[in-house]
Amino acid sequence: MFNFSFQNPTKIIFGQDQIAALNDNIPPDSKVLLLYGAGSIKRNGVYQQVTAALANFDWQEFSGIEPNPSFETLMQAADLVRREKIDFLLAVGGGSVIDGAKFIAAAAVFAGDAWQILAEGAEVTSAIALGCVLTLPATGSESNGNSVVTRYETKQKLGFSSPLVYPQFAILDPSVTFSLPTKQVANGVVDAFIHVIEQYLTYPVNACVQDRFAEGLLQTLIEQGPLALTEPENYNVRANIMWAATMALNGLIGKGVPQDWATHMIGHELTACYGLDHAQTLAVVLPALLQHKRQQKRQKLLQYGRRVWQLTSADEEEVIDQAIALTQAFFQKMGVPTQLADYGLNSEAIDTVVAKLTEHNMVKLGEHADITPEVSRQILQYAL
Amino acid sequence: MFNFSFQNPTKIIFGQDQIAALNDNIPPDSKVLLLYGAGSIKRNGVYQQVTAALANFDWQEFSGIEPNPSFETLMQAADLVRREKIDFLLAVGGGSVIDGAKFIAAAAVFAGDAWQILAEGAEVTSAIALGCVLTLPATGSESNGNSVVTRYETKQKLGFSSPLVYPQFAILDPSVTFSLPTKQVANGVVDAFIHVIEQYLTYPVNACVQDRFAEGLLQTLIEQGPLALTEPENYNVRANIMWAATMALNGLIGKGVPQDWATHMIGHELTACYGLDHAQTLAVVLPALLQHKRQQKRQKLLQYGRRVWQLTSADEEEVIDQAIALTQAFFQKMGVPTQLADYGLNSEAIDTVVAKLTEHNMVKLGEHADITPEVSRQILQYAL
Repeated sequence: MFNFSFQNPTKIIFGQDQIAALNDNIPPDSKVLLLYGAGSIKRNGVYQQVTAALANFDWQEFSGIEPNPSFETLMQAADLVRREKIDFLLAVGGGSVIDGAKFIAAAAVFAGDAWQILAEGAEVTSAIALGCVLTLPATGSESNGNSVVTRYETKQKLGFSSPLVYPQFAILDPSVTFSLPTKQVANGVVDAFIHVIEQYLTYPVNACVQDRFAEGLLQTLIEQGPLALTEPENYNVRANIMWAATMALNGLIGKGVPQDWATHMIGHELTACYGLDHAQTLAVVLPALLQHKRQQKRQKLLQYGRRVWQLTSADEEEVIDQAIALTQAFFQKMGVPTQLADYGLNSEAIDTVVAKLTEHNMVKLGEHADITPEVSRQILQYAL
Repeated sequence: MFNFSFQNPTKIIFGQDQIAALNDNIPPDSKVLLLYGAGSIKRNGVYQQVTAALANFDWQEFSGIEPNPSFETLMQAADLVRREKIDFLLAVGGGSVIDGAKFIAAAAVFAGDAWQILAEGAEVTSAIALGCVLTLPATGSESNGNSVVTRYETKQKLGFSSPLVYPQFAILDPSVTFSLPTKQVANGVVDAFIHVIEQYLTYPVNACVQDRFAEGLLQTLIEQGPLALTEPENYNVRANIMWAATMALNGLIGKGVPQDWATHMIGHELTACYGLDHAQTLAVVLPALLQHKRQQKRQKLLQYGRRVWQLTSADEEEVIDQAIALTQAFFQKMGVPTQLADYGLNSEAIDTVVAKLTEHNMVKLGEHADITPEVSRQILQYAL
């Protein structure tokens, strides 16, 4: 096991009817800015619950934060924060709104051009306090210090991390996810699944707890994910998916172990070039990457096949083949296609993605930093 | 799944040579009191590493904190804290030293008789900051807000909990555990194992993540525990046990699920009356309790047998029998006997323990609050 340090200060408030707990968890006398997206929270009753719980606060709102939140929109919110002397941000939404709130929190008090936080890794030395109400389990943003922001004018999608932008609290009420569109539920499950895989399916370092926890999250998502599609109002199913998605990327399972993330990096280019959903890109890239890296990832692929998929064959190649095939079948069962052709893409798309990876200096990906753009090309050929 | 809230602020600093990180994690200009036990830390080099890392601080020490730390000793330390205007406590040791530090932290600034914190549940409204260096994985005290203190003059063993006494940081260097006596290692593994069981082996509430995490910790301890006895200087084995013991009682796996703790409550009386080690009492009581409660805990016992022990029989009674027998065999393999007779105790001891449970109002134990002293008697008869 590698050395590590781990700390996660976010208070999780989990369960039915917990949105009312906002009243006790936002610091008294805060001047609150409620942040949200396109307004689906007004249709599912979440907006009404949130505003009722804010009755004791001086609050205002800023809506229109996009999926893949834009730098331009977030800077407008940051201006509002400064102008109105806001001292608490309340993000209500999925990963995009929460990621956006984190950037607003840092940008509003940044001395200089806040673009530097994203483009140059300028240090974040202070941030406005924030909390969140999660409406879409997927990204884990509700309980980590990571944020990804897109600058549309230059087609740049960049991230930053800071311990100062962990939400102080995250309210997770599984029942608010009942009304989510099927596609978002499915994408969220696939996204969370691959977050776990990126921290697990590398090479063994004898980290028993991390491996068992990762395997437990994968088994939970495999078992509960399809049920969320067939029984959309099953509270326990939604609760298990919501808690699994948070645990998948709150930092815990990745501590002390190697991490991959090549699937994410290659996937980002597919989203940027062709507009595929984030989870769709991951479902395309991951099985291809596992196939290409089957020798390098051999030990963990065997462990994954045997423990997560209960494969019992003595033939190791067969276990690996089946593990990859079952992974692909799981994504398909969730309604997320796994081949480039399913999205109308062919080998020209591979050329384009490889060129973008080179342009963005994504030339040493994976846990061994050996996935060059040429290797990414070979990987993507398995996904045609 | 039940509603829950979860927050754990402790920063974990895990790995080889991490004691030096004290220098960066104790707030600058702190006046530090180093707390430890009987002095084993001077023989294994930990004291030397700690004091080297304290070079930049104004510090003094207080030693002699007992296993099952005594109220009387801890109050002496609390007096010293007040007299010397200490503002940071550094506990170096196992659960007893850390539990002791938590009580000192609360008692030193408590207005009134600090015994009220333990005896009357008086609210802790402030506490001296503390951090710890863990030398014995077992209790999870390094990353929770719980403390148990014994008043020897009245034979009372009482606990308190407060979010104010979570250690700010916990340094976990598995290599400092190489020199532990075998018995302490074995007891620590059994203790951690039963901490998990108390939060897992109750009745199902469809909490997939919590169940899988608990099962992963149990499997880790079953696999790694015996290796710690045969390969005492295997770093990874020690690391896996240390991390599993912390995760077993940092609050995470018990959130949103029913908890039992009857084994602990009955075991405490065995320690108080006959001086058995804490883990020994648990190894005696747990299998007996599972046997007695096999119908009530049926669903989880079957899940435990199938997932943790990989039992495949279609005969459910056989799965439960084997699961209990394998649990007992595991404790025995760790060198911890599981019958009262192994400790020279017979049915008279049962009478004594049952009388003490009644005296201490331990009359509604277990996840259904249905374990009366009479039920405790029936349980203990399985352990004769």
